[in-house]
Amino acid sequence: MPVETASRVPALMNIATRLRIDSVRATTEAGSGHPSTCCSAAEIMAALFFAEMRYDPLDPGNEDNDRFVLSKGHGAPVLYAAWAEAGIIAREDILSLRRLESDLEGHPTPRLPWVDVATGSLGQGLCAGVGIALNARRIASGYRTYVLLGDGETAEGSVWEAAEMAASHKLDSLCGIIDVNALGQSQPTQLQHDMQAYANRWSAFGWYTVVVDGHDLTAILDALAQARRVTDRPTMILARTIKGKGISLLEGKGGWHGKTLKKGAEADQALAELQAQLVTDDGPPLTPRAPERRQRDGARPAAVAAPQYALGETIATREAFGTAIARLGAADERIVALDADVKNSTFSERFQQQHPERFYQCFIAEQVMIGAAMGLAARGAIPFPSTFAAFLSRAYDFIRMAAISGSNIKLAGSHAGVSIGEDGPSQMALEDLAMMRAQPNMTVLYPCEAVSTERLLEAAASHRGPVYMRTSRPKTPVLYGPGETFEIGGLKILRQGNQDVATVIGAGITVFEALKAYDTLQKRDIAIRVIDLYSLQPIDADTLVRCARETGGRLITVEDHYEGGGVGDAVAAAVAAHGFTVHRLAVREIPRSGTPEELVDHYGISARHIVAAVTSSREP
Amino acid sequence: MPVETASRVPALMNIATRLRIDSVRATTEAGSGHPSTCCSAAEIMAALFFAEMRYDPLDPGNEDNDRFVLSKGHGAPVLYAAWAEAGIIAREDILSLRRLESDLEGHPTPRLPWVDVATGSLGQGLCAGVGIALNARRIASGYRTYVLLGDGETAEGSVWEAAEMAASHKLDSLCGIIDVNALGQSQPTQLQHDMQAYANRWSAFGWYTVVVDGHDLTAILDALAQARRVTDRPTMILARTIKGKGISLLEGKGGWHGKTLKKGAEADQALAELQAQLVTDDGPPLTPRAPERRQRDGARPAAVAAPQYALGETIATREAFGTAIARLGAADERIVALDADVKNSTFSERFQQQHPERFYQCFIAEQVMIGAAMGLAARGAIPFPSTFAAFLSRAYDFIRMAAISGSNIKLAGSHAGVSIGEDGPSQMALEDLAMMRAQPNMTVLYPCEAVSTERLLEAAASHRGPVYMRTSRPKTPVLYGPGETFEIGGLKILRQGNQDVATVIGAGITVFEALKAYDTLQKRDIAIRVIDLYSLQPIDADTLVRCARETGGRLITVEDHYEGGGVGDAVAAAVAAHGFTVHRLAVREIPRSGTPEELVDHYGISARHIVAAVTSSREP
Repeated sequence: MPVETASRVPALMNIATRLRIDSVRATTEAGSGHPSTCCSAAEIMAALFFAEMRYDPLDPGNEDNDRFVLSKGHGAPVLYAAWAEAGIIAREDILSLRRLESDLEGHPTPRLPWVDVATGSLGQGLCAGVGIALNARRIASGYRTYVLLGDGETAEGSVWEAAEMAASHKLDSLCGIIDVNALGQSQPTQLQHDMQAYANRWSAFGWYTVVVDGHDLTAILDALAQARRVTDRPTMILARTIKGKGISLLEGKGGWHGKTLKKGAEADQALAELQAQLVTDDGPPLTPRAPERRQRDGARPAAVAAPQYALGETIATREAFGTAIARLGAADERIVALDADVKNSTFSERFQQQHPERFYQCFIAEQVMIGAAMGLAARGAIPFPSTFAAFLSRAYDFIRMAAISGSNIKLAGSHAGVSIGEDGPSQMALEDLAMMRAQPNMTVLYPCEAVSTERLLEAAASHRGPVYMRTSRPKTPVLYGPGETFEIGGLKILRQGNQDVATVIGAGITVFEALKAYDTLQKRDIAIRVIDLYSLQPIDADTLVRCARETGGRLITVEDHYEGGGVGDAVAAAVAAHGFTVHRLAVREIPRSGTPEELVDHYGISARHIVAAVTSSREP
Repeated sequence: MPVETASRVPALMNIATRLRIDSVRATTEAGSGHPSTCCSAAEIMAALFFAEMRYDPLDPGNEDNDRFVLSKGHGAPVLYAAWAEAGIIAREDILSLRRLESDLEGHPTPRLPWVDVATGSLGQGLCAGVGIALNARRIASGYRTYVLLGDGETAEGSVWEAAEMAASHKLDSLCGIIDVNALGQSQPTQLQHDMQAYANRWSAFGWYTVVVDGHDLTAILDALAQARRVTDRPTMILARTIKGKGISLLEGKGGWHGKTLKKGAEADQALAELQAQLVTDDGPPLTPRAPERRQRDGARPAAVAAPQYALGETIATREAFGTAIARLGAADERIVALDADVKNSTFSERFQQQHPERFYQCFIAEQVMIGAAMGLAARGAIPFPSTFAAFLSRAYDFIRMAAISGSNIKLAGSHAGVSIGEDGPSQMALEDLAMMRAQPNMTVLYPCEAVSTERLLEAAASHRGPVYMRTSRPKTPVLYGPGETFEIGGLKILRQGNQDVATVIGAGITVFEALKAYDTLQKRDIAIRVIDLYSLQPIDADTLVRCARETGGRLITVEDHYEGGGVGDAVAAAVAAHGFTVHRLAVREIPRSGTPEELVDHYGISARHIVAAVTSSREP
């Protein structure tokens, strides 16, 4: 061991003890939290923040800072304590833990500038770490990415998606550390302290693996040094620890997960015990090492050319998506794309063809696709992860956490609804709008043709925050000229007149069913208004209300989606305050295989059903 | 190799060839589907269905039949072809593949009696297999469970959740086979034909592992025989195969995933090529071996005792959930419970204490928890998987597929909404009602206190189909006497009079905010009607409409959930046809940490906000 490392150990030991003390102080003051899980990780945190990582505590925006993700988010107090020790926050701030007015929440969120992604839903941090490490390559930075995991969370499949992806992308700048304290929330973990079993798993997945005593600072520093020397693969450090380490009341004991020390004698005794562990001769104070900062051109996005389609030409919105992201990628190098082995169906292969260095293949692993996108977004990329919309449901917890993070990701889901046809319900997204609309800061877009798809993707790229775009499998005719403008929160009125007896609101493929219904009704001298509701969230409530007023208060929505949470609910919520209600045409049962045309008709969302709804008695 | 085995190989070779022929015929007739993925699995399917598995083709309901799950659901035609070969369906039925009037859908669903769970969303079959194998133990059956996976789908984390759980439960009756054809949908798989890498991973996860040539029937039969002899752990057979095997146009070639052979010369040539592979002297025809059937007592569920609570006693609905499932489990041995290491927070530990043999610990792995529950339900158990409601979002794709399967699972999610307090948004379910309501056949229940929780769980257990119950963290007072009845699709009117100026509809913790608002308003001589909407789907539309009529058309919903897809949308959809609209009080932004009381007030769903909504101008 180099002399320099050995000389730092006493100071690091004291830092670890102070991290324990502050974790206890904060959680006892808050009256809730997880002191025992902080204690098992104290030496790991001390080694990372005060010996290993290179970062400027005064400059969270430095893009060459090493990154740290606390995947075991319930250990938040020990992270906040490390910041206090590094001078990032004032030490007494930690006593505001979990208060409504404090950003030091129960689990870390990116409201705090040193946090890249919200954690607290276990098994997500390593996925984000994959994206953060990919970003280092993208911007040619030497920063390294460290992820601290709990042992219990390695039961989450998402961790193994990240393991596979990190290995296949040879992410040698990524270093995970598992705090193997052997105690879960409600009982001992599956593998407890079987360190060999952990090592076997990570080695089998292609990682460089080191087992250490997680309370031995020399061993931790040595493992981190090994990780730094490894090339061509990521490293996982497996740290054998004791939950509650340092406090005899908790040490290695079950029943203390998420339990704080009571104010008064109980906490005082623990704090005294920890104080007694401080060594007196710990050498000069340790400060974090500065990162190697590189100069970069702040390449400005170039202008994006207008989409090239002829009116009436038929093209699927999923195909326009592929064309658009390739085009956007040419104008802005921050744009990246991620795929889960469906790039020939979603057309994201067009991005890959033009920008192979910014295209990340995640294989059939949607959770790490979204998690890595969150990591990339946190470090300045603008990621477009895409797959079949149905399979985004696989990553809904990640999408939920992306919303909590306010992550700048641009999700795209293709093959929405029964209109995909023969493949059957497992491949049909019929709940994706409900999933996405539920997140209050999610922009939800659903274009019906190519020009609006392309223009809305431009808008999505320049909008700050999470966006979802739903695309369809069938080809649809181009409705709009190349100069037409589309904005988030807008809609288009496609047919209108003074005699309209109802407003029919479609989105995606149902816009064309509404137009067919218009033609049919026109022959019977019945006029309807037809709306292309391409933006579901935000939604243009004013125009919808005006149309309701102008068409006898009759609003009919038609959507290739289940009834709950979709287009009908979005419109109903928008117009409710004005006393208008909505007649909803939607898919109301589990569908089956068939041709697209058969299914659209069979499940009640074809032109014929719109005509029937318009011509049915106006009274309920 | 035993003589008996050797003598069966020629017949099995011919069966494999016929499975290829029928797969081509069916997909060519349908004009869509995945013949190439059927061809790689033909020998595996022949060996399983005509040499290895014990089942009675005439009796799909025989609970001792060996089970088969086609995790690579896009290989459906080869499964249907095997059934045709076994006489389960008529051979010409396969030509109805993917037609609206046929149950032979693009991906298998349990509309077909031999299918336990719908597949087609990759990575789910092995999770179901875990549950099916656990069920064999539950009913003391000797049946074995076989799961055929694609290689691409092993990138899904859920597969590794199943791997861990099967190993930790020592499921030696479970045998997986991975069809390693090395070609994904859009490109070669991550590991291609690196059989050692596959073997390393499965061995590291504790499985007995055999690598075979997946077109060598002798090797496959030998591997299956080995699997049968292994005790104390599951077996994974890694079969090296060639996609499109047997048809020179497709064999081992990219670009053929999900592509059919064109009717006419292309298909005819492939069929002729396959016909030529039939050997002439293949011995006597093979028929499936019969299962060892056991006699079982059809134990009838006993009567369930009434819940024991005193009016006004405070108890959290999550705690009542734990008490109830333990009580139900005592009355009906089909009831089982599954946990993801939060049993001390959800109180499912009460079930474990009373019925340890029917309690399955999944550790922190929600996908396999739901998948295993689906497998258990398919074989006659009534599973109650539970965790924090927020973390059910991790398994949303499984829940979606459970709905497609019409699976008899009873999901429970605790810690709903901002009322959990200090832990912060990562632990708060605020989109679970949207998730669940979107599924059209999902029953969605949300009781506010202990008696209704217990009674609704009884109703859930005897209801056939998927059910979700949302429970809360805070203690709430008991409102109902032990004899009160609750039904799926019902509600309770808690306060009413002739002068009610509005109907306030709460659910869960907001029922008590509504009751507080009632008291406040009463002092100001304003009367309101208060509803406990404990069943969101189905919903009692008639009573809601009547209440709207009787209270000036004013409906106010208040929910500890985001606006999109929750209580407000459910009520709005129910009353829309009668011209009534809903004023929604809901959480409208990403929340943060704080005390429950602070958060309920800060995010606009406390009694104060209800009072304001009632007393605000009636006109919008």
